[in-house]
Amino acid sequence: MVRYINLFEVPEGRDDEFMAMFLQVNAHMTAQPGYLGHRMHRALAPDARYRYVNYVEWASVDDFKAAHGEEFRALVSKPEWRDFVATPALYDVVHEHSAVSN
Amino acid sequence: MVRYINLFEVPEGRDDEFMAMFLQVNAHMTAQPGYLGHRMHRALAPDARYRYVNYVEWASVDDFKAAHGEEFRALVSKPEWRDFVATPALYDVVHEHSAVSN
Repeated sequence: MVRYINLFEVPEGRDDEFMAMFLQVNAHMTAQPGYLGHRMHRALAPDARYRYVNYVEWASVDDFKAAHGEEFRALVSKPEWRDFVATPALYDVVHEHSAVSN
Repeated sequence: MVRYINLFEVPEGRDDEFMAMFLQVNAHMTAQPGYLGHRMHRALAPDARYRYVNYVEWASVDDFKAAHGEEFRALVSKPEWRDFVATPALYDVVHEHSAVSN
Protein backbone atom coordinates (compact mmCIF):
# COMPACT_ATOMS: atom_id res chain seq x y z
CA MET A 1 0.00 0.00 0.00
CA VAL A 2 1.10 3.56 -0.69
CA ARG A 3 -0.22 6.86 0.66
CA TYR A 4 -0.87 9.91 -1.49
CA ILE A 5 -0.99 13.14 0.50
CA ASN A 6 -2.13 16.28 -1.33
CA LEU A 7 -1.94 19.70 0.36
CA PHE A 8 -4.22 22.44 -0.97
CA GLU A 9 -3.96 26.22 -0.66
CA VAL A 10 -7.48 27.62 -0.90
CA PRO A 11 -8.12 31.38 -0.83
CA GLU A 12 -10.50 32.63 1.88
CA GLY A 13 -14.16 32.39 0.93
CA ARG A 14 -13.54 29.88 -1.89
CA ASP A 15 -14.28 26.72 0.12
CA ASP A 16 -17.52 25.73 -1.62
CA GLU A 17 -16.04 26.29 -5.07
CA PHE A 18 -12.94 24.29 -4.16
CA MET A 19 -14.91 21.38 -2.73
CA ALA A 20 -17.13 21.22 -5.83
CA MET A 21 -14.00 20.97 -7.99
CA PHE A 22 -12.45 18.41 -5.68
CA LEU A 23 -15.54 16.19 -5.70
CA GLN A 24 -15.44 16.01 -9.51
CA VAL A 25 -11.89 14.62 -9.42
CA ASN A 26 -12.65 12.48 -6.38
CA ALA A 27 -15.61 10.77 -8.09
CA HIS A 28 -13.23 9.72 -10.86
CA MET A 29 -10.57 8.50 -8.41
CA THR A 30 -12.81 6.40 -6.18
CA ALA A 31 -13.82 4.35 -9.26
CA GLN A 32 -10.23 3.45 -10.24
CA PRO A 33 -8.61 0.02 -9.64
CA GLY A 34 -6.39 0.10 -6.56
CA TYR A 35 -8.17 3.03 -4.89
CA LEU A 36 -8.63 1.95 -1.26
CA GLY A 37 -10.00 5.02 0.48
CA HIS A 38 -9.52 8.71 1.24
CA ARG A 39 -10.08 11.32 3.91
CA MET A 40 -10.37 14.96 2.95
CA HIS A 41 -9.45 17.32 5.81
CA ARG A 42 -10.20 21.00 6.43
CA ALA A 43 -8.04 23.03 8.82
CA LEU A 44 -9.65 24.29 12.02
CA ALA A 45 -7.72 27.57 11.67
CA PRO A 46 -8.87 29.77 8.76
CA ASP A 47 -5.30 31.02 8.28
CA ALA A 48 -3.64 27.59 8.03
CA ARG A 49 -1.20 27.45 5.12
CA TYR A 50 -2.83 24.31 3.74
CA ARG A 51 -6.55 24.71 4.35
CA TYR A 52 -7.30 21.27 2.88
CA VAL A 53 -5.35 18.01 3.01
CA ASN A 54 -6.41 14.89 1.12
CA TYR A 55 -5.06 11.58 2.47
CA VAL A 56 -5.55 8.70 0.03
CA GLU A 57 -4.63 5.02 0.23
CA TRP A 58 -3.73 3.19 -3.00
CA ALA A 59 -2.96 -0.51 -3.37
CA SER A 60 0.28 0.24 -5.28
CA VAL A 61 2.29 2.94 -7.01
CA ASP A 62 1.34 1.38 -10.37
CA ASP A 63 -2.38 1.67 -9.56
CA PHE A 64 -1.82 5.27 -8.50
CA LYS A 65 -0.03 6.08 -11.77
CA ALA A 66 -2.67 4.34 -13.90
CA ALA A 67 -5.40 6.38 -12.21
CA HIS A 68 -3.61 9.67 -13.01
CA GLY A 69 -3.85 9.34 -16.78
CA GLU A 70 -5.61 11.35 -19.47
CA GLU A 71 -9.02 11.51 -17.85
CA PHE A 72 -7.48 12.80 -14.63
CA ARG A 73 -5.38 15.41 -16.47
CA ALA A 74 -8.46 16.65 -18.32
CA LEU A 75 -10.24 17.14 -14.99
CA VAL A 76 -7.43 19.04 -13.26
CA SER A 77 -6.52 21.17 -16.28
CA LYS A 78 -9.81 23.06 -15.98
CA PRO A 79 -9.06 26.79 -15.53
CA GLU A 80 -11.04 26.83 -12.26
CA TRP A 81 -8.16 24.86 -10.64
CA ARG A 82 -5.68 27.71 -11.19
CA ASP A 83 -6.50 29.42 -7.90
CA PHE A 84 -6.11 26.23 -5.87
CA VAL A 85 -2.43 25.36 -5.54
CA ALA A 86 -1.74 21.68 -4.84
CA THR A 87 1.40 20.14 -3.28
CA PRO A 88 1.13 16.36 -3.75
CA ALA A 89 3.52 13.49 -2.94
CA LEU A 90 3.53 9.74 -2.39
CA TYR A 91 4.54 8.32 0.98
CA ASP A 92 5.34 5.12 2.83
CA VAL A 93 4.51 4.71 6.51
CA VAL A 94 7.82 4.42 8.40
CA HIS A 95 6.61 4.51 12.02
CA GLU A 96 3.20 4.04 13.58
CA HIS A 97 1.47 3.38 16.84
CA SER A 98 -2.12 3.10 18.01
CA ALA A 99 -3.25 3.57 21.60
CA VAL A 100 -6.16 1.23 20.86
CA SER A 101 -3.81 -1.71 20.23
CA ASN A 102 -1.93 -1.22 23.54
CA MET B 1 -11.78 13.34 17.20
CA VAL B 2 -9.33 15.80 15.66
CA ARG B 3 -6.41 15.21 13.28
CA TYR B 4 -3.02 16.85 13.67
CA ILE B 5 -0.99 16.88 10.46
CA ASN B 6 2.63 18.00 10.70
CA LEU B 7 4.74 18.49 7.54
CA PHE B 8 8.53 18.31 7.90
CA GLU B 9 11.27 19.67 5.68
CA VAL B 10 14.36 17.49 6.20
CA PRO B 11 17.66 18.26 4.43
CA GLU B 12 19.12 15.45 2.33
CA GLY B 13 21.18 12.95 4.31
CA ARG B 14 19.70 13.99 7.66
CA ASP B 15 17.00 11.30 7.85
CA ASP B 16 18.47 9.28 10.73
CA GLU B 17 19.14 12.39 12.80
CA PHE B 18 15.62 13.68 12.14
CA MET B 19 13.94 10.39 13.05
CA ALA B 20 15.94 10.16 16.29
CA MET B 21 14.68 13.64 17.25
CA PHE B 22 11.14 12.79 16.19
CA LEU B 23 11.08 9.59 18.25
CA GLN B 24 12.00 11.54 21.40
CA VAL B 25 8.97 13.81 20.98
CA ASN B 26 6.80 10.92 19.81
CA ALA B 27 7.54 8.86 22.94
CA HIS B 28 6.25 11.77 25.02
CA MET B 29 3.13 12.21 22.86
CA THR B 30 2.02 8.60 22.79
CA ALA B 31 1.86 8.64 26.61
CA GLN B 32 -0.49 11.64 26.81
CA PRO B 33 -4.25 11.43 27.56
CA GLY B 34 -6.29 11.65 24.38
CA TYR B 35 -3.54 10.41 22.06
CA LEU B 36 -5.20 7.83 19.82
CA GLY B 37 -2.54 6.95 17.26
CA HIS B 38 -0.12 8.23 14.64
CA ARG B 39 1.45 7.34 11.33
CA MET B 40 4.77 8.87 10.34
CA HIS B 41 5.29 8.96 6.55
CA ARG B 42 8.41 9.33 4.42
CA ALA B 43 8.15 10.54 0.81
CA LEU B 44 9.04 8.10 -1.95
CA ALA B 45 10.71 10.95 -3.89
CA PRO B 46 13.94 12.25 -2.29
CA ASP B 47 13.16 15.76 -3.60
CA ALA B 48 9.63 16.00 -2.16
CA ARG B 49 9.07 19.35 -0.45
CA TYR B 50 7.85 17.67 2.73
CA ARG B 51 10.01 14.56 3.14
CA TYR B 52 8.11 13.51 6.29
CA VAL B 53 4.45 13.86 7.26
CA ASN B 54 3.12 12.90 10.67
CA TYR B 55 -0.62 12.13 10.87
CA VAL B 56 -1.92 11.98 14.44
CA GLU B 57 -5.37 11.32 15.87
CA TRP B 58 -6.35 13.02 19.14
CA ALA B 59 -9.57 12.53 21.08
CA SER B 60 -10.15 16.31 21.29
CA VAL B 61 -8.57 19.72 20.74
CA ASP B 62 -8.31 20.12 24.54
CA ASP B 63 -6.32 16.88 24.81
CA PHE B 64 -4.09 18.04 21.97
CA LYS B 65 -3.44 21.39 23.70
CA ALA B 66 -2.77 19.77 27.09
CA ALA B 67 -0.18 17.46 25.47
CA HIS B 68 1.69 20.42 23.95
CA GLY B 69 2.66 22.03 27.25
CA GLU B 70 5.99 22.72 28.95
CA GLU B 71 7.48 19.26 28.55
CA PHE B 72 6.73 19.31 24.83
CA ARG B 73 8.20 22.78 24.38
CA ALA B 74 11.38 21.71 26.17
CA LEU B 75 11.74 18.80 23.74
CA VAL B 76 11.22 20.81 20.55
CA SER B 77 13.30 23.79 21.66
CA LYS B 78 16.48 21.70 21.43
CA PRO B 79 18.88 23.35 18.95
CA GLU B 80 18.99 20.16 16.87
CA TRP B 81 15.43 20.94 15.71
CA ARG B 82 16.51 24.17 13.97
CA ASP B 83 17.32 22.43 10.69
CA PHE B 84 13.98 20.62 10.54
CA VAL B 85 11.22 23.05 9.62
CA ALA B 86 7.73 21.94 10.69
CA THR B 87 4.38 23.11 9.29
CA PRO B 88 1.67 21.81 11.66
CA ALA B 89 -2.11 22.29 11.74
CA LEU B 90 -5.26 20.71 13.19
CA TYR B 91 -7.92 19.32 10.86
CA ASP B 92 -11.43 17.90 10.75
CA VAL B 93 -12.39 15.23 8.22
CA VAL B 94 -14.97 16.80 5.86
CA HIS B 95 -15.32 14.03 3.24
CA GLU B 96 -14.30 10.39 3.24
CA HIS B 97 -14.86 7.14 1.42
CA SER B 98 -13.49 3.63 1.69
CA ALA B 99 -13.55 1.07 -1.11
CA VAL B 100 -13.59 -1.66 1.54
CA SER B 101 -17.01 -0.58 2.82
CA ASN B 102 -18.57 -0.58 -0.66
